[in-house]
Amino acid sequence: MSYRRKEKREKIASRPHWTELMPGIAVDCVIFGYHAGELKVLVLEYKNTELCALPGGFVRKQEDLDDAAKRVLSERTGLRDIYLSQFYTFGSLARHDTAPMEKIMKQNDMVPDAEHFLMQRFISVGYYALVDYKKAELHPGPLFESCSWYDANDLPGLMQDHQHIAEKALGSLRGNMNSRIAGLNLLQEVFTMADLKQLYETILGKKLSRTGFHRKMINSGLLERLGKKKTGKSHRSPYLYRFAR
Amino acid sequence: MSYRRKEKREKIASRPHWTELMPGIAVDCVIFGYHAGELKVLVLEYKNTELCALPGGFVRKQEDLDDAAKRVLSERTGLRDIYLSQFYTFGSLARHDTAPMEKIMKQNDMVPDAEHFLMQRFISVGYYALVDYKKAELHPGPLFESCSWYDANDLPGLMQDHQHIAEKALGSLRGNMNSRIAGLNLLQEVFTMADLKQLYETILGKKLSRTGFHRKMINSGLLERLGKKKTGKSHRSPYLYRFAR
Repeated sequence: MSYRRKEKREKIASRPHWTELMPGIAVDCVIFGYHAGELKVLVLEYKNTELCALPGGFVRKQEDLDDAAKRVLSERTGLRDIYLSQFYTFGSLARHDTAPMEKIMKQNDMVPDAEHFLMQRFISVGYYALVDYKKAELHPGPLFESCSWYDANDLPGLMQDHQHIAEKALGSLRGNMNSRIAGLNLLQEVFTMADLKQLYETILGKKLSRTGFHRKMINSGLLERLGKKKTGKSHRSPYLYRFAR
Repeated sequence: MSYRRKEKREKIASRPHWTELMPGIAVDCVIFGYHAGELKVLVLEYKNTELCALPGGFVRKQEDLDDAAKRVLSERTGLRDIYLSQFYTFGSLARHDTAPMEKIMKQNDMVPDAEHFLMQRFISVGYYALVDYKKAELHPGPLFESCSWYDANDLPGLMQDHQHIAEKALGSLRGNMNSRIAGLNLLQEVFTMADLKQLYETILGKKLSRTGFHRKMINSGLLERLGKKKTGKSHRSPYLYRFAR
């Protein structure tokens, strides 16, 4: 047995046995990364298969569903201590697509027979998070060629229904932005209305009216107004804000 | 064998075999009923066990998750053609409570051994709906003593984590009322602002200011204003509205 093959066998042996996993249930994570007007999504590429996927995995029998999502995210990407929100559970029959799974199994010296755990239909519980992608340190696990940020509007082709999962996550994120934005440290501790508007515009994927946005934010109770930003020209200086505690 | 026992055996035999069900996955339905200022929740009582539960059940291997929710709802309650919204998936380890399941199995001549399908941990995908309870025709299935509407603020003790599921459903319903209210035929086709305010107050569980509610609804674009209601005293007659198409 080659060293490489032996190493791979050992890695597989250290994973939990299929009987320790809940059958039929997976989790998938859509990790949005924001920085300075850019919105990205984290995508993994499986080794030697040209298959791209969202970070995901199965649930252990002795593990909360939410904990499984956190664990698979850190195992696949190295990201830790990220607050994940559950947004939707995907359970149509149509999503059961064994072809990519077969390819991945063959690549990992497994026999993809019809009775294998990995070949069964499973539903997937979707979680999303929003992080500053400049602060995220990525270390993809042994199964993956790469783990990288892709522009949210220009994702590579994703396996199974992962494209649909990513789109649905974006819809959910847009739908409850106000409650998500504060406390995520996506902006400096103090920021201008223009910084905040850029963040909203990037996530919503559209331009917003300056006066309308300003009024809405002031009325939201989300912000606390501080002094003016020092720019030298005090009559043109914008106010600084921070999120209300 | 008594006739009653034989009849029960036959009913159990006509159900799908456990091997035809997805292991580890159930659905639970929180059916809210509104009528004239009252908000209720549909609760089933299992025969001879004093156990109350939300309508729920397992997912067939050849069935979409959403279709499973519709099917178990109609099997348990007789309700059909109800639009169910998925709101959350419950997957903590703590929810795995075999005691009520044992009681139900014994009552139905099944042996509750630890390996039985019904004794395993499962996650539950929650769905909710909002209907006019005066229009709902209920026919509980053979397992149940009763299927009845309970005041949403005064539910009986529910088995497992069903109380938590019902509360979470109410939170979700309140969180997206505007998008749910129209088209559900909970009001007459035309209605006054007072009727609509009563509906919102009942679901939100609190009084709303008349002028604030009025302004918010007019600004929402949800409504179309028609003529005045004929009451004889035209200067006091309220306007009639309907939901915009």
